Amino acid sequence: MSNAYAELVKEQKDVATLTAIGSLLGWDQETYMPPGGAGARADQQELLSAIAHQRKTSPRIGDLISQCEASNGALDDTLRASVREMRRDYDLATKLPTELVAELAKTQSLSQDAWKHARAKDDFAMFAPWLEKILGLTRRKAECYGFASGGELYDALLEEYEPGATAKQIEAIFNPLQPRLSALVARLCDSPRRPPDALKGIAVPQDRQHAFGLDVLKAIGFDLETGRLDTTAHPFCSGFGPGDTRLTTRYNTSSCLEPLSSTMHEAGHGIYEQGLPKATQFGTPLAEAVSLGIHESQSRMWENLVGRSRAFWMWALPVAKRRFAPAIDHLTLDQVYASVNQVERSFIRVEADEATYNLHIMLRFGLERDLISGRLPVKDLPGEWNRRFKQLLGLDVPSNKLGCLQDVHWSFGLVGYFPTYTLGNLYAAQFWQTISAAIPDLDAQMSRGEFGALKTWLNENIHRHGRRYRAGELCQRVTGRPLSAEPLMEYLERKYAPLYGV
Amino acid sequence: MSNAYAELVKEQKDVATLTAIGSLLGWDQETYMPPGGAGARADQQELLSAIAHQRKTSPRIGDLISQCEASNGALDDTLRASVREMRRDYDLATKLPTELVAELAKTQSLSQDAWKHARAKDDFAMFAPWLEKILGLTRRKAECYGFASGGELYDALLEEYEPGATAKQIEAIFNPLQPRLSALVARLCDSPRRPPDALKGIAVPQDRQHAFGLDVLKAIGFDLETGRLDTTAHPFCSGFGPGDTRLTTRYNTSSCLEPLSSTMHEAGHGIYEQGLPKATQFGTPLAEAVSLGIHESQSRMWENLVGRSRAFWMWALPVAKRRFAPAIDHLTLDQVYASVNQVERSFIRVEADEATYNLHIMLRFGLERDLISGRLPVKDLPGEWNRRFKQLLGLDVPSNKLGCLQDVHWSFGLVGYFPTYTLGNLYAAQFWQTISAAIPDLDAQMSRGEFGALKTWLNENIHRHGRRYRAGELCQRVTGRPLSAEPLMEYLERKYAPLYGV
Repeated sequence: MSNAYAELVKEQKDVATLTAIGSLLGWDQETYMPPGGAGARADQQELLSAIAHQRKTSPRIGDLISQCEASNGALDDTLRASVREMRRDYDLATKLPTELVAELAKTQSLSQDAWKHARAKDDFAMFAPWLEKILGLTRRKAECYGFASGGELYDALLEEYEPGATAKQIEAIFNPLQPRLSALVARLCDSPRRPPDALKGIAVPQDRQHAFGLDVLKAIGFDLETGRLDTTAHPFCSGFGPGDTRLTTRYNTSSCLEPLSSTMHEAGHGIYEQGLPKATQFGTPLAEAVSLGIHESQSRMWENLVGRSRAFWMWALPVAKRRFAPAIDHLTLDQVYASVNQVERSFIRVEADEATYNLHIMLRFGLERDLISGRLPVKDLPGEWNRRFKQLLGLDVPSNKLGCLQDVHWSFGLVGYFPTYTLGNLYAAQFWQTISAAIPDLDAQMSRGEFGALKTWLNENIHRHGRRYRAGELCQRVTGRPLSAEPLMEYLERKYAPLYGV
Repeated sequence: MSNAYAELVKEQKDVATLTAIGSLLGWDQETYMPPGGAGARADQQELLSAIAHQRKTSPRIGDLISQCEASNGALDDTLRASVREMRRDYDLATKLPTELVAELAKTQSLSQDAWKHARAKDDFAMFAPWLEKILGLTRRKAECYGFASGGELYDALLEEYEPGATAKQIEAIFNPLQPRLSALVARLCDSPRRPPDALKGIAVPQDRQHAFGLDVLKAIGFDLETGRLDTTAHPFCSGFGPGDTRLTTRYNTSSCLEPLSSTMHEAGHGIYEQGLPKATQFGTPLAEAVSLGIHESQSRMWENLVGRSRAFWMWALPVAKRRFAPAIDHLTLDQVYASVNQVERSFIRVEADEATYNLHIMLRFGLERDLISGRLPVKDLPGEWNRRFKQLLGLDVPSNKLGCLQDVHWSFGLVGYFPTYTLGNLYAAQFWQTISAAIPDLDAQMSRGEFGALKTWLNENIHRHGRRYRAGELCQRVTGRPLSAEPLMEYLERKYAPLYGV
């Protein structure tokens, strides 16, 4: 028995290694690949993903999983969970023909390149045929996966990002949350008292922003011996296996502290990746993240609950002042705290504040659900984006660059991914209540630049389990109750009401 | 028939794509990989090279090659040459067991990492066990390849870098060349007239050196849309397939123009890679370089025959002055020309001048031949290096960092590679005589920063053929005679005699 499991792990480690190589190719494409390399890169991704898929779905792996299941009693709870998740992955993967996987990989690579150019030129027509193509392939993938009766095609895609979630469940969370958020946003944005944005327009050179970003990474515990930070158009985090986790961020913004949000967001993902037990379990579900919702809970927690807190800035402001001197020498803690917590209806999701952010997600959730079902034709996307954006956020979108071309996800066929951001916000707020009870002086620690207890708590309670527990179960174990919207709403109310005097 | 060839190309393209991915992993390891990633990277290289080797040696490829050979008449000369080279590669590759290839790939990756640390710490003992291990594996590889009767194990390794060459042939070239070079070096170094080194000690920030390097790359025709330039401990060039050729260089030197040598050297390799017809022939020998000797002829030509010429500096000096202002504002063309043509007995091969360089190579050729045969035990390498160095170059080596730890090659098991540098110098000088006759105003062009005619000549006469001709045949075709030491000796005499008044 343990022989079968050991052999299974060996096979799975090869699959994970091939996947890690593919991630490196993707990282390189975004960071350092010369423009002319796009065609060859697509060929590389196509070939590699075909090889990985063949190995992942090999009958040998199927046999080994069955052997492990047959003698489940010989495994402890953790290994049983590992086999359970391997079974799930295997059944999902074997539903996809290799040819579709390879075509998707190649098209993703090319389509992402097309998106990059279309976004730079603000030209939706350039991207539309690629979106059409990738949606077609994504639909085919969803059809291969299938979905429960009473469900919809979109559910099949959710399975990749948030195992077990359905569009209806998400709707059931989003529908009541939306009017509460809209009401809060209206109260804040219509308040006569608007905290001034003292940081606005203060730009500092990119190398200083980078240096400050590294200061913060070191302090919060992202290990730079096993990771790095680069610059891309769209920030992301990639874990390539044991000892290699890479973050990217971007600096071309008009406010000198704003890039830190992206850096901390990706660092949250990175600290999760570094906290997974890859050194011993790489290749098994025990070294993988639970779901994207849980992954986002980590990134949004570091970005917002830490990175936009007063306690954090008590420590970080002097650090930033040293790096940026003399650009922000004159600013007080109150000014900076108000400045990084501006609530404003705006166009770009990744720059949105905590109160409006989830409205951006709800927009995308609705649109991509309609794109996949076919209710919304690709050609109507810009118009429909703009119409619903006006409804949800009250603004007229002036360009597709600030509208439907802003995010990389759809160019990759990542449909079903967006709602996990809001799930992440909800999980983050709920975890935070538990953490605050477990570490009563957390604010005091953060104000001294001490993040070790927080990181250890996350390592112990969330990271080290890998996929031992599903998201809902993990939430119940950690917080003692199922996921609820209350902690997020409470947190937003408590934070913003005093700032806006409402 | 043409069906068999087309199918063969498709198979070979997959192999080449896997090889390109491996090259990217190697490039990343040297440029951006965090230190902690070394272990996982070795696993990736091991797996990838095993997969590539299995495909490369698949019976299917063997069958297709045989089919193409059987109906050779249906192929034109070029495709016949392509099949001839595929047969050679296949026969060579099938001699190696996959398990050895994978172990070599993994050990190379780890051993290179060990070398990097050993070099930084100047600690040969740290590297010795790795060198022992990689030499053992390299010997096993050579034994698998085999060699002609009357030859030696080293010949088998040469086959990978300089097809058809033998240790005896190289000895026959090196043995008479060495005393002539030594005599020239002695005359120059002992001359009472020593051209002053006005550049010595003038350092400029790395970003300016990088900008100047890019200026030169653009001018000489290295395409930055399909290539890039980064920084590593040991400069190299990697071609990853169509549209992606990457150079690295290093800047941490005491003289501000010296890094340009590395940059131009690697650019010479890069211009060759970019000149190969990869867009149409990728995967076939027609899109591959003839041999390392020919590859080095390109790098050494741009580095020395162009990059250390008076004509080149007539154009390049004002460009450098603008980038480095005011650091070298005061220097004249004569001063710079003398400065970049210092002949000096020194320790580091990649920084050696044109006159002493080949003595460095002869040292390595002798040592690695003895390492492979077992005549020289690894533990005696530092002592033996230092003893022979004293004989050839008259200096006492003060540290292994400046001695046997300076080059990356052996850490990779690249034994048989070094002599191709001197072959490259010989080919370069001989090609240059032909080029100078074909483009009579080449000096005038270079002095205006015009390198297009030179690049076109190289593209037409050397690059576009891929492996259509073997090195000796190409030399005969291009220059009308077999390789000879005369052009190099004539060039060195003519250039250095006036500078040193001898």
